[in-house]
Amino acid sequence: MKIVRYITAAGPQFGCIHDDIVYSIEGLPSRNAQQGARIGPLNSVKLMAPCRPAKIIALAINFPGATGLSETMKEPLVFLKSGTSVCGPYDDIVSPFPGINVWGESELAVVIGEHGSIFGYTAANDVSADNIEGWDHHLARSKAADTFCPLGPWIDTEYSPANRLIEGLQNGDVIRRGNSDDRLWGDARAVEWLSRWMTLEPWDVVLTGAPVRVVPRRYLKPGDEFIVRIDGLGELRNRFRENSVR
Amino acid sequence: MKIVRYITAAGPQFGCIHDDIVYSIEGLPSRNAQQGARIGPLNSVKLMAPCRPAKIIALAINFPGATGLSETMKEPLVFLKSGTSVCGPYDDIVSPFPGINVWGESELAVVIGEHGSIFGYTAANDVSADNIEGWDHHLARSKAADTFCPLGPWIDTEYSPANRLIEGLQNGDVIRRGNSDDRLWGDARAVEWLSRWMTLEPWDVVLTGAPVRVVPRRYLKPGDEFIVRIDGLGELRNRFRENSVR
Repeated sequence: MKIVRYITAAGPQFGCIHDDIVYSIEGLPSRNAQQGARIGPLNSVKLMAPCRPAKIIALAINFPGATGLSETMKEPLVFLKSGTSVCGPYDDIVSPFPGINVWGESELAVVIGEHGSIFGYTAANDVSADNIEGWDHHLARSKAADTFCPLGPWIDTEYSPANRLIEGLQNGDVIRRGNSDDRLWGDARAVEWLSRWMTLEPWDVVLTGAPVRVVPRRYLKPGDEFIVRIDGLGELRNRFRENSVR
Repeated sequence: MKIVRYITAAGPQFGCIHDDIVYSIEGLPSRNAQQGARIGPLNSVKLMAPCRPAKIIALAINFPGATGLSETMKEPLVFLKSGTSVCGPYDDIVSPFPGINVWGESELAVVIGEHGSIFGYTAANDVSADNIEGWDHHLARSKAADTFCPLGPWIDTEYSPANRLIEGLQNGDVIRRGNSDDRLWGDARAVEWLSRWMTLEPWDVVLTGAPVRVVPRRYLKPGDEFIVRIDGLGELRNRFRENSVR
């Protein structure tokens, strides 16, 4: 089943999609969801992120060639993004740090189910900013601003993550590309390891790392569009802008 | 009002305390709580952490003399701990990383209210572990394991954080000591700044940094007790042990 959330006058609703048609869900979305009544064509609803995780656990340095990789590495680098950093699959990424370098990262994401199981898969953009003090850029200042985690468009509970192309495109140019099978730690290994030291809760999301750049590093300029495209999981398409509040 | 949560046969309950007596709460704990019926003496209930934050935002390098401080620093270092890292004021800290150095840090914590306001104050222990790969120890591996954030014993909604002694004790010896007024960024400034780039939600917690060590660094050994003592806010008392699962 492909689970979505969409906006209605009564608030966010879970639904599911089949052949580009949105249906309601009967039962609990995380447990025993059944396809319900027809809502309408996919393009007639405004999609939100398909879930609102309490925490987002992100793996870095999980592809061959990744910056920071060493031969003796025993485990991937793990950092947190906040649930409040999530935005929808077509929402704007709004940097609160004008003039600071921001970039996108295309990642296959695991959505956690009950008892720490793998519930399904979705696409994520691990938007990141330079840390103004030069501190580790995996810290909150760089990773956890509002809108810094586009997620969606849906959670596929029957998805096979084997041999899937993962791409990041900026203004139509492929700038990151990799295959899910090249990840140093696969989904099951990562989730099992994380759950040894951290309780994983339903709707928590694990980002499994960005494939390497295939062009020199590019930062986002206002107006740029970043696409995360994962074979069989659809696309995130988010435009970048800056907020002048800070 | 001093807000607590305690365990009952029916599950966690909010309450409030007055002169070491626990009372029920009428109204919403986060909005219009009123003291209700008498439950019993404080020592007759088992306290939990007074809230379960979705996210914990922690400031580092916020005291003079802190490791990593530079004269040109524009902002404190900000990292995230997970909500699942929270444990109660007298629970055991259980390291899932046997043989890895773990230490405690005593911190004054702000609890966020509605619309990003400061709802109250509580005490926190920012338990930390060495990162096995030598990566920044503010990352999840070091900061976000289950039980790595003792919180409580209560949230004081009328607390003044001015001129308060903050101490960390290990087996009765004071190993960290500082005054809340010495913090480089105060509560209001920190919360206002964070809210420019991150939505703060009710029950989110902001740790405002550990005062410096007054003795050489000490790591926790199994059986050690770490106390966080903050003038007017009571004490956290947590015993340390290791889990052999990993």
